[in-house]
Amino acid sequence: MDNKQQNILIIGAGLCGALLALRLGQRGFNVAVYEKRPDLRTTKLSSGRSINLAFSDRGNKAMKLVGLEEKVKALCIPMHGRMIHDKNGDTLQSNYSGRKHEYINSVSRNDLNALLLDEAEKHENVNFYFDKTCQSVDLEKTTALFTDGKTQKDFIEDADVIIAADGAGSALRKSYFLDRHFLFSFSQDYLSYGYKELSILPNENGEYLAHKNALHIWPRQSFMLIALPNLDGSFTVTLFLSYTEGTFNFNNLDTEQKVLEFFKEEFPDALLIMPNLATEFFKNPTSPLGTIKCSPWHYKGNTLLMGDAAHAIVPFYGQGMNAAFEDVVVLDSVLNLNLENWEATFKTFEKHRKKDTDAIADLAIDNFHEMKEHVADPIFQEKRKLEMLLEKKFPLQYNSKYAMVTFNENIGYQVAMLRGRAQDRAILNLLVRGEISINPKATKDELQAILEKINHETNKILEDHRNADLRY
Amino acid sequence: MDNKQQNILIIGAGLCGALLALRLGQRGFNVAVYEKRPDLRTTKLSSGRSINLAFSDRGNKAMKLVGLEEKVKALCIPMHGRMIHDKNGDTLQSNYSGRKHEYINSVSRNDLNALLLDEAEKHENVNFYFDKTCQSVDLEKTTALFTDGKTQKDFIEDADVIIAADGAGSALRKSYFLDRHFLFSFSQDYLSYGYKELSILPNENGEYLAHKNALHIWPRQSFMLIALPNLDGSFTVTLFLSYTEGTFNFNNLDTEQKVLEFFKEEFPDALLIMPNLATEFFKNPTSPLGTIKCSPWHYKGNTLLMGDAAHAIVPFYGQGMNAAFEDVVVLDSVLNLNLENWEATFKTFEKHRKKDTDAIADLAIDNFHEMKEHVADPIFQEKRKLEMLLEKKFPLQYNSKYAMVTFNENIGYQVAMLRGRAQDRAILNLLVRGEISINPKATKDELQAILEKINHETNKILEDHRNADLRY
Repeated sequence: MDNKQQNILIIGAGLCGALLALRLGQRGFNVAVYEKRPDLRTTKLSSGRSINLAFSDRGNKAMKLVGLEEKVKALCIPMHGRMIHDKNGDTLQSNYSGRKHEYINSVSRNDLNALLLDEAEKHENVNFYFDKTCQSVDLEKTTALFTDGKTQKDFIEDADVIIAADGAGSALRKSYFLDRHFLFSFSQDYLSYGYKELSILPNENGEYLAHKNALHIWPRQSFMLIALPNLDGSFTVTLFLSYTEGTFNFNNLDTEQKVLEFFKEEFPDALLIMPNLATEFFKNPTSPLGTIKCSPWHYKGNTLLMGDAAHAIVPFYGQGMNAAFEDVVVLDSVLNLNLENWEATFKTFEKHRKKDTDAIADLAIDNFHEMKEHVADPIFQEKRKLEMLLEKKFPLQYNSKYAMVTFNENIGYQVAMLRGRAQDRAILNLLVRGEISINPKATKDELQAILEKINHETNKILEDHRNADLRY
Repeated sequence: MDNKQQNILIIGAGLCGALLALRLGQRGFNVAVYEKRPDLRTTKLSSGRSINLAFSDRGNKAMKLVGLEEKVKALCIPMHGRMIHDKNGDTLQSNYSGRKHEYINSVSRNDLNALLLDEAEKHENVNFYFDKTCQSVDLEKTTALFTDGKTQKDFIEDADVIIAADGAGSALRKSYFLDRHFLFSFSQDYLSYGYKELSILPNENGEYLAHKNALHIWPRQSFMLIALPNLDGSFTVTLFLSYTEGTFNFNNLDTEQKVLEFFKEEFPDALLIMPNLATEFFKNPTSPLGTIKCSPWHYKGNTLLMGDAAHAIVPFYGQGMNAAFEDVVVLDSVLNLNLENWEATFKTFEKHRKKDTDAIADLAIDNFHEMKEHVADPIFQEKRKLEMLLEKKFPLQYNSKYAMVTFNENIGYQVAMLRGRAQDRAILNLLVRGEISINPKATKDELQAILEKINHETNKILEDHRNADLRY
């Protein structure tokens, strides 16, 4: 581990692979990165992946680690809360936090990826090779087989360590699965929903046609539309919809007329500012929504999965990229331990990390239901208002589940999930039972009493769970 | 669906495939079954699968359906309860039910499979082809590619419908996974434990050397030994042990001396009647313990997965075979609906069935912990004693989780799991809190009061869960 002259081969130069290359380059390793796509800095790509992403505190911790916090900030558009649109076009803003400095950001996948590639390439010991598709990995020999996209010729690369950051369709993970060298637990779970990207364009002066600093949601119980702002004045809009269920679904929306009818009925205010809807709807792909979990992530000290390759999640918590970046932070901290070899390093990394990536996968599914259903529910809205009030009045004492997941990069996802779920249940129980209520004019003492009730009920729920877990 | 002259191709002539062939044959379909192994009735096989199995009421319901209840009974050895062996060789019998007529049975996999093959073959419209390994299935053409074990030649078979009952390593499921024709949710989860089969032989007079009518368990917290009786006076013994953890594990038990030392320390009474231990330990394979779930089970009306191919489970509830047999019962009842086509039939089958096979998969994992840890726990033993008393005194009113799963073939596994888990938690809570206690001399009125407390607490827990589910 002390020998920094070791050769590390990274598969994938996406967000995770590029950041990893940068960090390992900073640490002095020889890093070669092979990416199946052409260089996104010089090629216009239609990648099929989402155009903009939510960037928040866990991701930012990684940017601090590599010294890019300020440069990334310049790419970010703050989103302070959800702007909820009802069928009449009326809106309701629901902030992500009661603390002013806590918000999430919309960032362009391409801009951020390009920045990471530029910064990584500044290191002589980091080299990128584009248009090289990994076909498989030889787990014992620590070699990877690639096909060159231009020549269509195959070639084999050797390394001391291979780390795959090649996303949900990972070639290394496929080798783990098919080679059957070891017991590989694996799951891929698809929602019965797909998603399609659309857009709201700016007006002729390049101005935003909806409130810029929010994540817009049109929640409709069994489906939803969302929109995130881009720097050029446009919004990237995503429709989440069942493939087969309901009056309108991806399978039966097969004419422009039906699409327009659907939007007119469900999202009339959005339709007004989506002149390209019908064209885009049939041009852009419908993509699936899947969760991938697996274990082990590593094979001996030879190979390791990171980011989506190890734990792809659905996008509803805006944590996919943040979790992948956090992987790099966690691996970096394990490298600081200077363990005896790569096997011990990878084992420690997975042991420390997997519980948290399992948790964010489950939280992301929870949030799908929260976004399409609960945000429009009066009691849920009451809960969120109360939480905003508590975060405002007791900024050091109260954190909602959302805040723990999104703004508390020093709390692991698993702890955030367990405490956050219990707290959500506690507040809803207390509201339903009428044991607490929300009053914007409540005194600090009254709010303090509410906070104590919530904490008491939360701890009781956690205690019950612990007892049940001990017994079963 | 009315056309019984349709050709059904079944992959696999194991327990599920043979029963399915028999039932579909009885219904008048043309059935061709292809099995990768030689005919087990004429070939001595060392299959690597467990030699004897637990057979109980769900399996028996299937035997009734095909008219084989009496013939199967002749193959069965009743096991009335668990015989728990401690380290001193002391034993404690813990019955499976407080009702005398409720017990499970040990049955030979081979004998039962042979019976099903014989019975199926009596139908002219059912034909078996052995030594034919399925390589893949063409999902659109409804054809299967086989390799003949003798000639090593490949051939393709065509059918109206292909049903795969080819076990945990199903070729059809592999085609679902690799062909990517549709979104296929899939998981394989391995325990970090393996198992190895060993044996207790009869004495020279062919007599059993341990109590015949029990399932013997040597629970040791992090590992365990179990034994099920065979008709010839022997017991098949299975060691469940971690691959890597603990003082002794499958990886470090690498000499005869270590194996003997391990058994001497942990299972001294078993060691005394296992003269072949050291030989068998190194001759017999160590096999993994995995759970497989997937969805969809069918592709259009062309293909369907059944039994372990659709839902392999760990063996700890003794329900693997019973669940596979129950699949046939459920499919048969869906066929009775005379739906418009195979697609509707398969869809209805999965919709009705999958929730239950998911539940038994989870219950089987629960029971692993129960068997190796809890059965030796005083409070668990107290709970079981109380449950026996309740089942005895209130045979129509009380059913333990074990009884709901094992002896109530008309309650689905999912209902048994939800109610059973809540009830287990309720009893343990009440015992721990001192709100109920066990007294063998309790009057019927006193027991009635206890039963009401348990029901009240159980319903409260179920209500809490329902509320939480509604909100999240």
